[in-house]
Amino acid sequence: MQHFTYSDLHQFTYNIFKKLGCPEHDAQLAADVLLKADLRGVDSHGVARLIGYVRLWEKKRINVKPKITIVHETPSTAVIDGDEGLGLVVAPFAMQVAMEKANTAGTGWVSVRNSNHFGIAGYHAMMGLEKEMIGLAMTNASPLVAPTFANERLLGTNPIAVSIPASQQPPFVADFATTTAANGKLEILQRKKAKAPLGWVQDAQGKPSEDPHELADGGALLPLGSDRERGSHKGYCLGSIVDIFSAVFSGANYGPWVPPFVSFLPLAKDPVGKGIGHFLGAMRIDAFQPADDFKQHMDQWIGRFRSAKPIEGEEKVLIPGDPEREMEAERMELGIPLLEPVVKDLQELAQRFKVDFIK
Amino acid sequence: MQHFTYSDLHQFTYNIFKKLGCPEHDAQLAADVLLKADLRGVDSHGVARLIGYVRLWEKKRINVKPKITIVHETPSTAVIDGDEGLGLVVAPFAMQVAMEKANTAGTGWVSVRNSNHFGIAGYHAMMGLEKEMIGLAMTNASPLVAPTFANERLLGTNPIAVSIPASQQPPFVADFATTTAANGKLEILQRKKAKAPLGWVQDAQGKPSEDPHELADGGALLPLGSDRERGSHKGYCLGSIVDIFSAVFSGANYGPWVPPFVSFLPLAKDPVGKGIGHFLGAMRIDAFQPADDFKQHMDQWIGRFRSAKPIEGEEKVLIPGDPEREMEAERMELGIPLLEPVVKDLQELAQRFKVDFIK
Repeated sequence: MQHFTYSDLHQFTYNIFKKLGCPEHDAQLAADVLLKADLRGVDSHGVARLIGYVRLWEKKRINVKPKITIVHETPSTAVIDGDEGLGLVVAPFAMQVAMEKANTAGTGWVSVRNSNHFGIAGYHAMMGLEKEMIGLAMTNASPLVAPTFANERLLGTNPIAVSIPASQQPPFVADFATTTAANGKLEILQRKKAKAPLGWVQDAQGKPSEDPHELADGGALLPLGSDRERGSHKGYCLGSIVDIFSAVFSGANYGPWVPPFVSFLPLAKDPVGKGIGHFLGAMRIDAFQPADDFKQHMDQWIGRFRSAKPIEGEEKVLIPGDPEREMEAERMELGIPLLEPVVKDLQELAQRFKVDFIK
Repeated sequence: MQHFTYSDLHQFTYNIFKKLGCPEHDAQLAADVLLKADLRGVDSHGVARLIGYVRLWEKKRINVKPKITIVHETPSTAVIDGDEGLGLVVAPFAMQVAMEKANTAGTGWVSVRNSNHFGIAGYHAMMGLEKEMIGLAMTNASPLVAPTFANERLLGTNPIAVSIPASQQPPFVADFATTTAANGKLEILQRKKAKAPLGWVQDAQGKPSEDPHELADGGALLPLGSDRERGSHKGYCLGSIVDIFSAVFSGANYGPWVPPFVSFLPLAKDPVGKGIGHFLGAMRIDAFQPADDFKQHMDQWIGRFRSAKPIEGEEKVLIPGDPEREMEAERMELGIPLLEPVVKDLQELAQRFKVDFIK
């Protein structure tokens, strides 16, 4: 696999967003968010998706000069209309509003409509860290997931991210899809020609399957829990809560009406709202505890869990965010590996937009 | 199994709490919360636990006349000290504070320390329904759960409840432990002398097990997801978030330091806080959308999911809260079934406190 430096890929991504017509600040921000996924090892959500955003732009489903507005607010809440802007730009705007609300009201909660895919949820949640805030981010997404007992795709992988600062310890950063496995994991198995573990997908008849190609054949991803006996109804609850907070709160599309990210799939004919929805939250630490006390307890919490006795054969117990942080350090030093088809997509974009590709 | 009417069991439970010394209002409220579990089919959290509360009271771990105080607040947050009161009383107090905050600030978020077991999370979340609010409730609990890769019990079953009002449709009420299965489910299997599905427990060596008695033998419950391959690290994230919001926010005990509910287990020698912790939230619907619009969209959301095509062999797709609501209607009419050992416990309490048992 070819490796690229963070700064080369960032520059290239920025250049493409500029060529689409994004203002300077937005192009920088969109590149920041996208590249953060590559750094943290969430390869499916990084530059591999750049061409997907371009295709949405071609279909006029992305407004590169959005007028993002607050359409309703209270001291601790706001609803934002993203004006069909890039989710990569709209979500950080919304998180900023949530943090401003938190500054005065203790917490801030912002629901967003009329947006697009926002990259990794963790980026937005982690914006709170420098401000001594807990950050939360969630979004709904293209319907690929069957609720428990359903033979229909009604929910997206609807991720949740929660970021909590500590003092000496690195922060606690959870960022996960509310499904057993996200689509990107299936793509890895497809490339390896390997089977999927039972509990990841069901086939077009709703039966358990180990075939990682089921989504293309009318199957569905399964909610966290895998099956009813192992609590898939809880994953279904979580995905539903993300959908409702992101879209019913904001006036976006929800459930099966969520517009698909891939531009070749048609939009629902009877939309129930505008675009896709996100939900961002910020809680000031000192709205609950003196910041130093809180962070010392987080150090103790993290230290205790990290030093837990591992199961035989496992190296250690991890804290949410550990694997991604280690990956980020490694890729900053050694570069970001990209698969051949991703490199080709980027070269195609370079030619088309007359942007120098990375030498 | 013997059946008892709601009102008989409620009266009896109220009488016992009165005998412990609870004030009138608290005894009523504690009976309300406890009985709600029996009505909704969460038998492990209802009157079956009454004797457990009495045992904690004997050990002077419950203060029946607590002075519940707000120790810190901002416009949208508060930290409450439960003064070792019954969680059944402290949590509704805290939810009331959250709703008052929501009235003025749009949302309210209350973290509670120095409390005890609060019954079913759903009761507290559902308090928001009549006020046109979304309710959230979570709590930490006795350490019985091993994080992914760990061979130690560091987390409780740490439930999350979210309640969302609709208009014509009944409300969406999710209420679930962040483990594959809660302890009560294992007890059912023990009585049936049946095996547990793989993914519910691990044995004392941290190996997967089908023996429902593993907890007594040094094993542990597993986080939602069952194993790493099926996303147990996500259940571990969820349980951790509940623990941190409930206890690090409030100054309660967290992780392995949480005091056990069963009175025969010793308390941690080096507590990191006071009692157990809860986290309650309330969001006014109209802090986001006009209430009627919101509820109409919830009707549409619920209607669409309920009418989804079921998998062959399954009757229908359920909405979170459906099974509990149906159970509540049934038990209000036909009575609440109690197992023989539970009836014996209640008879013992009746004798001891010189309270008439139900005829």
